[in-house]
Amino acid sequence: MLFKQVYDHIMTRIERGDWNVHDKLPSIRLLALELGINRLTVFKAYQLLKQNGKAYVKEKSGYYVSPENSLPNLYERDVNESIESSAVHLNSKLSDIHRVTAAYQFSQALIDPNLLPNLFLSEYVKKVFDIYPKLMGTYSTPQGDEELRDVLCQYIIRHYRVHLNTSEELITTGAQQAIDLLSRIFIRPMDAILVERPTYSAAIDVFRGQGARLIPVDFSPEGYDLDMVELLMKQHRPRFFYMNPTFHNPTGYTLPITQRKQLVELAERYRCLLIEDDAFHDMYFDERPPQPLFTYDTEGWVVYLRSFSKYVAPGLRICAVFGRKSVIEPLITAKSLADNGTPLVTQKIFVHYFQSERMQQHLEKLRIALQIRRDIMEEELALAPIDWKWITPKGGLNIWLQLPDTVPARTLLNESFRQSISFVPGQICDPLDEMQSWIRLSYSFVNEEQIRAGVQQLAEIAQRIKER
Amino acid sequence: MLFKQVYDHIMTRIERGDWNVHDKLPSIRLLALELGINRLTVFKAYQLLKQNGKAYVKEKSGYYVSPENSLPNLYERDVNESIESSAVHLNSKLSDIHRVTAAYQFSQALIDPNLLPNLFLSEYVKKVFDIYPKLMGTYSTPQGDEELRDVLCQYIIRHYRVHLNTSEELITTGAQQAIDLLSRIFIRPMDAILVERPTYSAAIDVFRGQGARLIPVDFSPEGYDLDMVELLMKQHRPRFFYMNPTFHNPTGYTLPITQRKQLVELAERYRCLLIEDDAFHDMYFDERPPQPLFTYDTEGWVVYLRSFSKYVAPGLRICAVFGRKSVIEPLITAKSLADNGTPLVTQKIFVHYFQSERMQQHLEKLRIALQIRRDIMEEELALAPIDWKWITPKGGLNIWLQLPDTVPARTLLNESFRQSISFVPGQICDPLDEMQSWIRLSYSFVNEEQIRAGVQQLAEIAQRIKER
Repeated sequence: MLFKQVYDHIMTRIERGDWNVHDKLPSIRLLALELGINRLTVFKAYQLLKQNGKAYVKEKSGYYVSPENSLPNLYERDVNESIESSAVHLNSKLSDIHRVTAAYQFSQALIDPNLLPNLFLSEYVKKVFDIYPKLMGTYSTPQGDEELRDVLCQYIIRHYRVHLNTSEELITTGAQQAIDLLSRIFIRPMDAILVERPTYSAAIDVFRGQGARLIPVDFSPEGYDLDMVELLMKQHRPRFFYMNPTFHNPTGYTLPITQRKQLVELAERYRCLLIEDDAFHDMYFDERPPQPLFTYDTEGWVVYLRSFSKYVAPGLRICAVFGRKSVIEPLITAKSLADNGTPLVTQKIFVHYFQSERMQQHLEKLRIALQIRRDIMEEELALAPIDWKWITPKGGLNIWLQLPDTVPARTLLNESFRQSISFVPGQICDPLDEMQSWIRLSYSFVNEEQIRAGVQQLAEIAQRIKER
Repeated sequence: MLFKQVYDHIMTRIERGDWNVHDKLPSIRLLALELGINRLTVFKAYQLLKQNGKAYVKEKSGYYVSPENSLPNLYERDVNESIESSAVHLNSKLSDIHRVTAAYQFSQALIDPNLLPNLFLSEYVKKVFDIYPKLMGTYSTPQGDEELRDVLCQYIIRHYRVHLNTSEELITTGAQQAIDLLSRIFIRPMDAILVERPTYSAAIDVFRGQGARLIPVDFSPEGYDLDMVELLMKQHRPRFFYMNPTFHNPTGYTLPITQRKQLVELAERYRCLLIEDDAFHDMYFDERPPQPLFTYDTEGWVVYLRSFSKYVAPGLRICAVFGRKSVIEPLITAKSLADNGTPLVTQKIFVHYFQSERMQQHLEKLRIALQIRRDIMEEELALAPIDWKWITPKGGLNIWLQLPDTVPARTLLNESFRQSISFVPGQICDPLDEMQSWIRLSYSFVNEEQIRAGVQQLAEIAQRIKER
């Protein structure tokens, strides 16, 4: 028990109104008893409170809450506000944006449901329930359905010729949950972690929620500056490097094969886990991307998140995490505490569909459809009289667009929301909270007519802002 | 930034091997720079390291790692072990027990899949996919499907005549996730919370994982000692009281109606949230249980967890959390960071089935089947020549059995595992880690023959232990 924690504890209780201004704080003896700690520790905490002007002393009486300490409207707040104020503050900036309804949803990096083989899928589900009549009555294990793990494990082995078995795999409800569980077992407050700059906004929110210090690694079309990565690993001893090296979200960049091998070596040398989020691997347009970093790893320093359901059946939310047992075992425990296991129904539906021939045909068609949408978006962007810049993505779901200085992203977003257009401002993808002249436009969720009309409107809005 | 946190941070890095024995620690200037904090703070942390014998000083050189500090086999550990050792340690004692395969599963408080209307359910699923052909292609919002929230909200309003709307509701993947998310937004390290003694083992693990101090409230067949509860609320100012007042797990006890009203008043007075976990409400045998505490709450101090899928379709894992917006709003954010929303597929299947007439008929039958299983278990327990004691549960899935002193639960569990019988030892349900003469036997997962044979075998094992 440590006096600084006791100090924080008392401050929290003052803030939530357990003790008001000029209230007497519990005696040192009593608080020591209550917290089950040494009196000296409490004494030190009270001294610090005094020193910081949070409490004052009345001779022979005790410690009292100082007036400057409390918020002016503490008394006025009603009960519900005070419940809220006592909750730990978490942010989810991306989901705040997604809550805005928009006719032109360029903010959603999801596949348009019209591009999915819905009817076939429904037929498939019916078959699955014929095969497993008791499916609805059965729980999954926290680690995930054995059959599903086996099929996905074999898939990875077949494609990449790695050694792997089903005990080195965990099924999660989407990649988001995998990121969250990994944070919970690896991040302690103040721990350094490396993240790409820019990166997936919701991952930033998760890592911050766990109290991590985020160290940015710039991601350019050529990859990372590996000397810089080494320096950062040496200097900060990060717990892990969270990366999305293939058709990266939001930029669309792909890390070159040479850097992949070198990074795995750096990870080993500096004992820094690489968390490789590979959600867009199969969404390539011209050629297949390089092999995952995971496949170069022999020492167990890469954890591989492969979200399979995004482009197959997003409603199912199936992600597989592959890693050494030393990583997977604590993850299973975290998963069992978090939700006791992903629903078996969705796992069984997925595993049967995933193995069907139809699924491969669907993927082929989907890639073409997405490529067409990307082309249309690029065409409209190029036609617009705005000097915005981007690099053609060779896969994935997004275009990362640099706005001219005359068009601030924040202004553009506000005006766009009003005209029912949504996109993701670059700032929320930046661990440094800058990148105010970048935006992410997803071409995957809206159809071809909507892309044309939406980008044209966006250009008009940008033009108006420029001319102000 | 606080020097005690810096101290912990350095200790963690020493433990994980960033610096070995007699290695020089970074200079104060450098570490202050790295962590972005004041040099004085680092200086204080180094002083404490010295004071605690974790570091020593070389004149005009700096701080070095002391030898007594490192584990003797730190060098010998292989890479994977060191990854594991760097993970935050979480426990999930209940899921450890469930991993043991057993012919007589008295440890699983789940409904036997044979008691569920599986065929009907499967037919139902097919209909749902006809209604929503694009179901597989669609994400849910983090808060949960609007239609499902509306149906469950109306159900609560109809049954209990409370004011409620769908914005005061969140859908989670089972009650386990609701407990976990609530812990994450309300518990900071060292915060006191009240829990029943005994209580749900996995809840203890979640709360401990968040760093809570667990204050036990004894639960007897007459309820709680409310004077004691008031004293504990006054003294410890707990963040919340996690309770399972209806057919309580593991005891089967139900909190009397008079105590329910008084508790809600206490909650208001001491600003202590009540988290009412009501997973077994519909599993009554003779008469309906009293109304949930939630229905007596007008000020927003009760959060109500109603797990609906347990006895309907456990494979779906659907729980609803009801509470004021001030609680639900931060919960939605936590949910969106945790997994971006429960799969839509399971929500849609559930909502349609839940509204069917068939569902009510099923519930009626299920209650009778469970009552018969309880009766059989009691009959066999009574026939055994062991002086064990229990109170007949009037609902729920478990019997809470007190063993004679001559039969320690730990010994009984070990011997039982060997004979393919599993149950939950009382100790893991006790926040004080005692209750070594109690065990929880679930009668819901095993069929009638298995109950007879299993309890008979259990009695024989107990008899042998007694005679030793």
